[in-house]
Amino acid sequence: MSQIAVLGLGQMGSALTRAFLAAGHRTTVWNRTPEKAEPLVAAGAEQAGTVADAVGASDLVVVVVPDYATVRALLAPAAARLRGKTVLNLTSGTPEQAREEAAWFEAQGAAYMDGAAMSGTRLVGRPEALFVLSGAPEVVAAHRATLVALGNPVSVGADPGAAALYDTALFGLAWGALAGFYHAVALTGAAGVDPVAFAEVAAGHMPFVTGLMTDHARQLGTGRLTDDDGTVDVHAAAMDHLVETSRSAGVGTQLPLAVRELLARASADGHGGDGIASVVEAVAASAGEAGRV
Amino acid sequence: MSQIAVLGLGQMGSALTRAFLAAGHRTTVWNRTPEKAEPLVAAGAEQAGTVADAVGASDLVVVVVPDYATVRALLAPAAARLRGKTVLNLTSGTPEQAREEAAWFEAQGAAYMDGAAMSGTRLVGRPEALFVLSGAPEVVAAHRATLVALGNPVSVGADPGAAALYDTALFGLAWGALAGFYHAVALTGAAGVDPVAFAEVAAGHMPFVTGLMTDHARQLGTGRLTDDDGTVDVHAAAMDHLVETSRSAGVGTQLPLAVRELLARASADGHGGDGIASVVEAVAASAGEAGRV
Ligand SMILES: NC(=O)c1ccc[n+]([C@@H]2O[C@H](COP(=O)([O-])OP(=O)(O)OC[C@H]3O[C@@H](n4cnc5c(N)ncnc54)[C@H](OP(=O)(O)O)[C@@H]3O)[C@@H](O)[C@H]2O)c1
Ligand SMILES: NC(=O)c1ccc[n+]([C@@H]2O[C@H](COP(=O)([O-])OP(=O)(O)OC[C@H]3O[C@@H](n4cnc5c(N)ncnc54)[C@H](OP(=O)(O)O)[C@@H]3O)[C@@H](O)[C@H]2O)c1
Repeated sequence: MSQIAVLGLGQMGSALTRAFLAAGHRTTVWNRTPEKAEPLVAAGAEQAGTVADAVGASDLVVVVVPDYATVRALLAPAAARLRGKTVLNLTSGTPEQAREEAAWFEAQGAAYMDGAAMSGTRLVGRPEALFVLSGAPEVVAAHRATLVALGNPVSVGADPGAAALYDTALFGLAWGALAGFYHAVALTGAAGVDPVAFAEVAAGHMPFVTGLMTDHARQLGTGRLTDDDGTVDVHAAAMDHLVETSRSAGVGTQLPLAVRELLARASADGHGGDGIASVVEAVAASAGEAGRV
Repeated sequence: MSQIAVLGLGQMGSALTRAFLAAGHRTTVWNRTPEKAEPLVAAGAEQAGTVADAVGASDLVVVVVPDYATVRALLAPAAARLRGKTVLNLTSGTPEQAREEAAWFEAQGAAYMDGAAMSGTRLVGRPEALFVLSGAPEVVAAHRATLVALGNPVSVGADPGAAALYDTALFGLAWGALAGFYHAVALTGAAGVDPVAFAEVAAGHMPFVTGLMTDHARQLGTGRLTDDDGTVDVHAAAMDHLVETSRSAGVGTQLPLAVRELLARASADGHGGDGIASVVEAVAASAGEAGRV
């Protein structure tokens, strides 16, 4: 069992601590407002009086505070204790910030992993709670067994910035799906369909949609964008139909119009008869234009 | 085992026929171009020379051709044989067309179900192939056991137009998710991430996102839009970050800007501190504005 320190006992830090304790890890906690540690101490955590003491008591230091400036402000005074430790920073930030942080911690003699919690706090400790991690493969590998206590830790690359990049990209993915869902709920709701009834059918459809993602990624990998799931032009026509249906139902058309624009661009680029994964090229190539919006 | 007729042996009709045969149903097929029936006859189907003969030989008539006008053109000459039969029309169309078709078939003494195939042709016959069905509950119930041969038949309402409405709404849902995925692939691709590697992580994240849909539908049902998954304003700030990250990576911003617009409207409507399911109200209320785009 590892000796773990958790710095920052907000929503996320508290959830992480409970999961480590539940898995039997000796866990030392520190928080700016010490009172927030009380329920965790009651659950078996030890409380440190300073960041340096928490770092000194542990092998793996997990830090989760609002931003990277706070991470540095907390750890700089404890720099002398960092040699030989491993730091996992689960604070949200940019790839550049993660790379700078990695360099600073490595200069103190600590190993560094960056990470992002992708599934909120409620699932923490359950196998479906996704954590993306980046950093040197041997460092991630050395702590994987410990981090399984948090859920599903997935290594996404040696570049310390990779976790932040995945975080941002997965946020966009989640919002595409949610915006599609909210639009569908508004559209069916206009015809009197109950959101819970619709969601049940929608949830049954999502594994198929997820399967398309996997298939289309494979197509993109090989460069053969086959039309097994319909061509760009056929989907563009169906999207026109969704725009019209939404208008006549009196609901917004923001999402279908954005998708329509992507399909139109893919078609204009000569992909009208190709599979819909061609849209990736339309997104990759359309920054200039979209930037003017 | 039911006696089934399949009218229209295109991609979809051929796949349906194979699934019925695999489940042991006696299946009679008809196609305008008779040669297309040959592989199905080799697989055990019987071929009818006319639509009327196919209808006469069966209890359940499944029709799947490009549009509703073709459905009527094919079935009108066989109207005298329709009394007492059940028709399942899997041709794509609008809710209004489905309602008109139901009225016409019922006037001929036939029971009518409308339906939509949601999972393409490749999964047909497997339990994950979703078919949404609408029509009188007793008619759908009477044929459910037969239709399980096709995959997962789900009844979505007594209104014959319900299946077409779900079809359109689920198409929008699927495209929201796919557009989010394509955007994420373009964004991570700009940093050199392989689409297949990203898709593996993305596929692991989708069950969580699907869980949010189910939770948020429940919230909408009760009217309490709690912020357990973050507030509208927090997500709007993160979406600004995605827009900026996309711009600096040189990829399009169509999808994040559309989502940003929905979040901005939800916030303007007073939902900034509420949960993100508030976006449904923003979509439901924004048709006028979006119509001007
Ligand atoms: N909550 C989630 O679902 C979630 C999901 C994914 C990622 N994250 C990320 O996790 C990080 C933390 O989020 P959270 O939800 O746990 O935040 P939170 O509940 O607001 O807690 C913030 C924590 O940071 C501490 N803190 C803030 N400013 C500080 C300072 N100047 N010096 C020392 N400590 C300071 C707070 O201490 P006090 O108690 O003394 O105020 C508290 O422990 C953020 O980067 C967030 O983006 C959160
Ligand atoms: N394929 C899919 O993945 C999929 C998924 C969901 C829904 N659908 C829907 O299923 C329906 C059929 O699609 P499909 O992909 O099977 O189409 P398809 O492969 O193009 O086949 C069209 C079928 O309709 C017949 N047909 C066309 N015009 C006709 C006419 N005037 N009179 C008689 N028969 C005529 C064709 O007969 P011939 O062989 O003589 O040309 C053929 O059997 C459409 O409404 C489509 O939207 C398809």
